[in-house]
Amino acid sequence: MRVGGRASGLRHMPVRHLGEDLNVPGVLVAIPEVKSFIERCMVAAGTKPEHGQALAEVLLAADHRGHFSHGLNRLEMYVNDIQSGITLSNTEPKVLRETAATAHVDGMNVLGPVVGKFSMQIAIKKAKESGIGFVAAKGSNHYGIAGFYSLMASSIGYLGLSFTNTSPLVLPTRGRKVVLGTNPLTLAAPGKGEDSFVLDMATSAVALGKIELASVKKEKIPKGWGADAKGKETLDPDLVISGGGLLPVGGSEESGGYKGYGLSMLVEIFCGILANAEYGPNIRRWKDTERIANLGQCFIAINPDVFAPGFSDRMQDLMNICRKITPAEGETEVLVAGDPERRHMEKCKKQGGILYHPNQIVLMHALADRLKIDQMPTKR
Amino acid sequence: MRVGGRASGLRHMPVRHLGEDLNVPGVLVAIPEVKSFIERCMVAAGTKPEHGQALAEVLLAADHRGHFSHGLNRLEMYVNDIQSGITLSNTEPKVLRETAATAHVDGMNVLGPVVGKFSMQIAIKKAKESGIGFVAAKGSNHYGIAGFYSLMASSIGYLGLSFTNTSPLVLPTRGRKVVLGTNPLTLAAPGKGEDSFVLDMATSAVALGKIELASVKKEKIPKGWGADAKGKETLDPDLVISGGGLLPVGGSEESGGYKGYGLSMLVEIFCGILANAEYGPNIRRWKDTERIANLGQCFIAINPDVFAPGFSDRMQDLMNICRKITPAEGETEVLVAGDPERRHMEKCKKQGGILYHPNQIVLMHALADRLKIDQMPTKR
Repeated sequence: MRVGGRASGLRHMPVRHLGEDLNVPGVLVAIPEVKSFIERCMVAAGTKPEHGQALAEVLLAADHRGHFSHGLNRLEMYVNDIQSGITLSNTEPKVLRETAATAHVDGMNVLGPVVGKFSMQIAIKKAKESGIGFVAAKGSNHYGIAGFYSLMASSIGYLGLSFTNTSPLVLPTRGRKVVLGTNPLTLAAPGKGEDSFVLDMATSAVALGKIELASVKKEKIPKGWGADAKGKETLDPDLVISGGGLLPVGGSEESGGYKGYGLSMLVEIFCGILANAEYGPNIRRWKDTERIANLGQCFIAINPDVFAPGFSDRMQDLMNICRKITPAEGETEVLVAGDPERRHMEKCKKQGGILYHPNQIVLMHALADRLKIDQMPTKR
Repeated sequence: MRVGGRASGLRHMPVRHLGEDLNVPGVLVAIPEVKSFIERCMVAAGTKPEHGQALAEVLLAADHRGHFSHGLNRLEMYVNDIQSGITLSNTEPKVLRETAATAHVDGMNVLGPVVGKFSMQIAIKKAKESGIGFVAAKGSNHYGIAGFYSLMASSIGYLGLSFTNTSPLVLPTRGRKVVLGTNPLTLAAPGKGEDSFVLDMATSAVALGKIELASVKKEKIPKGWGADAKGKETLDPDLVISGGGLLPVGGSEESGGYKGYGLSMLVEIFCGILANAEYGPNIRRWKDTERIANLGQCFIAINPDVFAPGFSDRMQDLMNICRKITPAEGETEVLVAGDPERRHMEKCKKQGGILYHPNQIVLMHALADRLKIDQMPTKR
C-alpha cells in the first residue's frame, strides 16, 4: 500500500470526521472541558503544562471550527508521540538566526503547536517592527489546523499565513508515486469587528479521510480526488488507498491538477526546503513513529497599515460583495472562506458546547482510563 | 455577455495562443528583432524609450517561454492604451511609504511592466537588507506574465513571488456572477546552475483563451473549466462565453473549486485590498479602455540565506526527485513547474528564434504600418 507506506496502517486508523457524520445522537461537551481534558492527557503523558496547553488550544480550535478530523480525533497520536519519546517536551524551540523581518527557528522536536505558537509570536513581533515577519521552522511536528496560526495574526488586525509540509500522500501530475504531502496553506485577513477571511486548505483535492469514508460507505469518489497505483485517475476509493494516491487540487492534468501540484511544491519550498527540514518523500510516512518527523513550517505576519490605511474596510467590502452574489441554480448562498467555521462556532455557542460522535467520546474515555486521569465530562 | 462585460467585445478579440496552434508553417523571428520591434512600436505610440524597453522585456519573455497569449499577441493593446492616454508614460512610479522590509508603491498609471520592474527591484533591495522585501503597488496596469518578476529574484539566487489582480472573469463557488479575475500567482525558486522552479499560474482552472479556442473549434470543454449563466458547470464553451464564467482551479465545489476560489481571493487580498487599488468586480472589464485600470500588484523577494545555507542544493534535489518519479500509465515523464518553458526556450535557441503563427506576423506588420515604423524582420 503506497499511500501512507508500510508503517502507516491506514486501515487501522480510527475513522476520521467522527463529528461530521452524526447518524446517531451526538454527545455534548462544554468547551472548557474539552480543553482541560486535552491538557490532563498531555501532562499525564509527560508534557510540561504549557506544552499541553498549546496543544489543547489548537485541537480545541479544530473541533470548535468543525474540523473534527484535527481535534480530539488526533489526541491519542500526540499522547503516543510523547509517551514513546518520539516527540519531546523537556526543551523549547529556539531562534537560530534572525534579521529585522525574518527568523529561522529550530523547533527542537517539541509538539507542533508549541513550535507554531512560538514562531507566529515572533512573526507578529517582527511585523510590528518591520511591517512583515517571516519565520521558517525546522524540527517541528504535526501542528494541527494551520488556520490556528493565521488567526493569531488576524485577531490583532494583521494578515497571517502559515504553511506546513506533511507526510507524502499526493501524486505529482503525470506520476505514479506519492511524493508530496497534502501540504496545507492558510491565510487569515481581518474584516470589521469579528468578521474575517480564513482560508485553510490542503493543496490536495481532498483529505485522505474523505477517501477513507467513501471506502467505508462503499461509495464511488468524485472525479479529481485520487488515482490508482498506475497513476490513472479512478473513482474507486479502494484503488486510491491500496497503492494509489491523492490528486493535487485541480485533479487531472487536463482539469488543472498541475496547478495544485505546483502549489503543493510551493508549500514544500517554504517549509522543508527553506527551513532545512525533511521534505517531499523523505518525510516519514503518516503515523510512522519510528523516527522523528522534523517537519518544516512557515509563519508570516503582515501589518497592513504599512501599506495603506483602511485595509479592514476594503476586506469587509470584498467579503460583503461575494456574499451578496446571486447564488447559482440550486444553491442558496455564496460563502467566503471561514464562513462555515464561523457558523459551526455559532452552533456550538447555541448548543452550549461541541457535539461529538459517541464513538469519539468512547475513545476519549478509554484514553482517560489508560492514562489514569479523570474522564472528560459530557453534558448529555 | 457577462464574462468580460459590456465593453469587452470578447468575440472581437484576436484569437489567442496563435503560437501554440501551428497547423500552418510558423514564421521565425530572431529574439533581438522581437524586442526591438516592441520598443519601436511603443516609442512610436508615445512612451519613453525605457518604458518601451520594460514592456519589450516582458512580452518577449512571454513568447520566448512559450506563453504566446501574453507576448506579441497583446502588443497592440498596450499601444492603444498609450495612444488613447488611458495609460501614461510621462511619469514614473513612486514609493508612498516604506519600512525596512516593505514598500507601498503608486504605479502612477504607467505601463504595468514599468511598475513591476520598479517594485521588484525595491523588493530585492529590501531582501538584501532585511531578508525579505514585500512591495504592494496600486495604480498599475497589465504587467504581462507574472513569472517575469519572480524570475528577477530567482536569477540572483532569491525566491521571488508576484501576484496581480485582473478584470473579473471567474465565478465564486456557488455563485452566478463573475466577481474575481483569473488572478495569477507566481513563485520562482533557484536550483543549481540555470535550473529553477517557476510556478506561474492563474487561479482559474484555465485561461479564457482556452475556452475561446474550444468555441472556435466547436469542441466541448473538459469538466471543471467553466459554468453557464446560471452558475451551473457546463461543457459548452459558448455557454461560458455568453453570460457564464470561468471556474476557479478545482472546478466545481465537489472537486475542490472552493479552494481555487479561496486562492483567487488570496491574490486579490494581496493586491487590490492591501495596495488600496481597484478590486474584485470594481475592476474595469477586460479591454475596457474608458477608464484607467488601477490594478493592484504585489512583489516579494526572499533571501534564503537568512534561514539556512544550502537552499539551492535542496531545491535541486526536490526537483530531481520529482523528475525521476515513475510516470503514470500512458505518460513519459514527470515535470516540474518551469520545465515546459525551459524546453521552449531551448527549442528557440536551436531554431534560432521564436516561431510565430503567420497570422501574428501579419498583425504585427499591419501594426508597424499603422505606426509608420519598420516592420519586424522575419527569418523565413
